[in-house]
Amino acid sequence: MSERNELIESIRQLPQKLEIAVSRLTDVQLDTQVGEGKWTIRQLTHHIADANINAYTRMKLIVTEVKPILKPYNQDAWASLADAAHGPIEATLTTIQGLHERWVRFLQSLPEASWTREGIHLENGKLTLQDVLRTYARHGESHLQQIISFCEKMKW
Amino acid sequence: MSERNELIESIRQLPQKLEIAVSRLTDVQLDTQVGEGKWTIRQLTHHIADANINAYTRMKLIVTEVKPILKPYNQDAWASLADAAHGPIEATLTTIQGLHERWVRFLQSLPEASWTREGIHLENGKLTLQDVLRTYARHGESHLQQIISFCEKMKW
Amino acid sequence: MSERNELIESIRQLPQKLEIAVSRLTDVQLDTQVGEGKWTIRQLTHHIADANINAYTRMKLIVTEVKPILKPYNQDAWASLADAAHGPIEATLTTIQGLHERWVRFLQSLPEASWTREGIHLENGKLTLQDVLRTYARHGESHLQQIISFCEKMKW
Amino acid sequence: MSERNELIESIRQLPQKLEIAVSRLTDVQLDTQVGEGKWTIRQLTHHIADANINAYTRMKLIVTEVKPILKPYNQDAWASLADAAHGPIEATLTTIQGLHERWVRFLQSLPEASWTREGIHLENGKLTLQDVLRTYARHGESHLQQIISFCEKMKW
Repeated sequence: MSERNELIESIRQLPQKLEIAVSRLTDVQLDTQVGEGKWTIRQLTHHIADANINAYTRMKLIVTEVKPILKPYNQDAWASLADAAHGPIEATLTTIQGLHERWVRFLQSLPEASWTREGIHLENGKLTLQDVLRTYARHGESHLQQIISFCEKMKW
Repeated sequence: MSERNELIESIRQLPQKLEIAVSRLTDVQLDTQVGEGKWTIRQLTHHIADANINAYTRMKLIVTEVKPILKPYNQDAWASLADAAHGPIEATLTTIQGLHERWVRFLQSLPEASWTREGIHLENGKLTLQDVLRTYARHGESHLQQIISFCEKMKW
Repeated sequence: MSERNELIESIRQLPQKLEIAVSRLTDVQLDTQVGEGKWTIRQLTHHIADANINAYTRMKLIVTEVKPILKPYNQDAWASLADAAHGPIEATLTTIQGLHERWVRFLQSLPEASWTREGIHLENGKLTLQDVLRTYARHGESHLQQIISFCEKMKW
Repeated sequence: MSERNELIESIRQLPQKLEIAVSRLTDVQLDTQVGEGKWTIRQLTHHIADANINAYTRMKLIVTEVKPILKPYNQDAWASLADAAHGPIEATLTTIQGLHERWVRFLQSLPEASWTREGIHLENGKLTLQDVLRTYARHGESHLQQIISFCEKMKW
């Protein structure tokens, strides 16, 4: 399987894997930080949705405009907002499930030429569509693994 | 009820109203344009999700940054992408359901002072958080009404 | 004379008026702050050039693009740079003389329709070409008057 | 001499070299294109000033902000404006003379650490201060050489 197909497959599988990892946790467990100075599992779950909402948007901008501005977002500030710090995760898991299904359909529909299209990220500079795909597929996996490893360590 | 609460209530109700309006339609009906030179019901459904993903993002940017850039998106180009023009609507209805629930929780958590915060939209200039709320609550209602009216006219 | 012509005339006259006001001052006088917590006459002179370099650029962007981004600049940080805080003013007076002559020729060449064109200032939002003209013509006059009034007060 | 010092020296020398090259030309000569589909010497002269006004601004933005947006400009549209296509070059030569003198003073005042600071160019992505220096020093030299070579070919 090509790198690209692996990355898309990873995005396709994330919602179910994340649901399995977090839906059985209690509120007390969700509100536990996965390490000193780190976010809680609840915050990580909302963060994965927010990151991927941004990723989906950036990828559509790259495909529909010439070198669009890709606006960074302040992930720490987003994770500190009340809905992300304390809100229930069910709606967020639902969002991720719906968003990823459509996002995968979008990614699979693109012609080869789309993947070298570029956007201008206001902190990281030029990024191709392939760069954004790689960054966010790995970003989701990495946070999922962070949650799973922490739960194993805690024997949850 | 204050204007703001009415607008938030409208955002809260949209997912269910939209689901009732479109989930019973056949693929042929979904692929019918609601007027000459207008989008199909399928495109409108995906467009409501895309617009509100952008609205959710803009509102979080306004709350977490000082006068952030609010990036416009090319709605016609987005609506012409394969997933929006031809993709099934179920995942999109799921996304809207999850997104709006969390979006409402976010909006209800904000202190009064947040509502005069501003972003800089690259086409429309300065917008307050209240402006963005008003624009998108009415935008969703307007497209929902467009779909409902068309179905009534068609006796669907 | 129309408001616009008055503003353009003000821009045309500024270089000579500024030269008369500051070229006869000693270095010690140039390095005197015009008030507590205010800039020195030297900094004000360099600042007028920097502001108008930005104004010239913004106006050309507005005329040659559709709703261009107008980038703010941090005027306090610019005024604290070594060349602005301590550098001789002769080259800057020369720059202002040349720049304003060309800037006026540019402004006088524009068709009526240009004056309602807009740019998006990243702090102030939408600005028309006429807004930018008004802001910068008055900005230059205001700083010139600040220098002249201070010198009168000091009997220089 | 280091690359950086050579580039700064090139910026320092440009105004005089350009003045020698173009100030003795007649209006008819100034209005001659330097090649098919190329600009006239008059346009090139105004363009060098406009490019370096933008370069000066970009470099000050990079030094005074964290990863500022560097706004591209449409050089062909600027060169087609009346003042650039048909205006006298004297004021522009004066501007270049004054601007370069101050620009060099600014460049020579910077600590080593400034040179790796970055801006985000909306077409080219991340650029360091050193990148911008190199680009514009060479850009000026290249256009100067273009004018000189053309005049030699024409035996002017």
